Amino acid sequence: MTLTHVNPDQLHTSPVFSQGVLADAGRTLYVGGQNGTDATGAITGDIAEQTVQAFRNVLAVLDATGAGPEHVAKLTIYVHVDADLGAGFAASGDSWGDQPTAITVLRVAGLARPEALVEIDAIAVLP
Amino acid sequence: MTLTHVNPDQLHTSPVFSQGVLADAGRTLYVGGQNGTDATGAITGDIAEQTVQAFRNVLAVLDATGAGPEHVAKLTIYVHVDADLGAGFAASGDSWGDQPTAITVLRVAGLARPEALVEIDAIAVLP
Amino acid sequence: MTLTHVNPDQLHTSPVFSQGVLADAGRTLYVGGQNGTDATGAITGDIAEQTVQAFRNVLAVLDATGAGPEHVAKLTIYVHVDADLGAGFAASGDSWGDQPTAITVLRVAGLARPEALVEIDAIAVLP
Repeated sequence: MTLTHVNPDQLHTSPVFSQGVLADAGRTLYVGGQNGTDATGAITGDIAEQTVQAFRNVLAVLDATGAGPEHVAKLTIYVHVDADLGAGFAASGDSWGDQPTAITVLRVAGLARPEALVEIDAIAVLP
Repeated sequence: MTLTHVNPDQLHTSPVFSQGVLADAGRTLYVGGQNGTDATGAITGDIAEQTVQAFRNVLAVLDATGAGPEHVAKLTIYVHVDADLGAGFAASGDSWGDQPTAITVLRVAGLARPEALVEIDAIAVLP
Repeated sequence: MTLTHVNPDQLHTSPVFSQGVLADAGRTLYVGGQNGTDATGAITGDIAEQTVQAFRNVLAVLDATGAGPEHVAKLTIYVHVDADLGAGFAASGDSWGDQPTAITVLRVAGLARPEALVEIDAIAVLP
């Protein structure tokens, strides 16, 4: 087992994330911040559509190394302060499925591209 | 020795953090963003109280894997832009003690829960 | 080869970053958030000058462990929302050169020091 999910009894826990993830020494994949950019380089759509595309991009990088969501130890999700966080969460569930990871969710003042409403980076540990 | 603290002569340094931390290959614990949530799921109190609780939560995740502050290579502390940063720093000293790590401190536009004023995530490397 | 750059065909790619970087198990250097602080502890100058200094500081931490830009798997660049992002990007090219890494760029509401306009942290994997 490469990843062990850590959810101490004394912490409030949730089925959608883990409080910590312990990874055995292994190859580590750093996925750079993915936003809602499609294959043409365009970012279109609302927060829900951009979230779906951003997760699709994260999954494409994982897949290129033979990895999947089950190898992800940490996700960090940066949501534009003007975007609807609830709509982003709902789209995350549809895109990412039910694989818990350690996670940080922030509201940021902006992203590198002005039309971007969400950016997601990830760290995965591969067997 | 698993962690080596790196503080080059040409950089301004501080006793409370390290400019870099070099970790030998080992098990790596990714602690997801911890805020001031208590065991019931409530976030209460001001920035100082939330910071104390957030560090308590980080320490609980570390402890569940047999780790402590001395195994932490990197802390990232996200402080709400409307919170008193100085009060947060003072509370950090009380909560975390004097174990230096590599650190990034940011002021963010918000966190996932609207009542949260601080969130802290960590990466620890275990022997 | 310690680092493998991952740029799947189905993603829009750029010569200045990699969509992901896969690192073999090895020593990992966590570089704490570096801003435009000079050796005296002062932060001066505009976003371009601060970016140059921040990268100089990142490179100094890398160099102290025998590493260079080619060992960096991930950069995260936090730019103050009031700073000129384009000027920061231009200065990044001058400072960092053309070594791609996985990268996340965010606009934040502030940094720990009120005069700081940019902060950069890094993860490097050493052979």
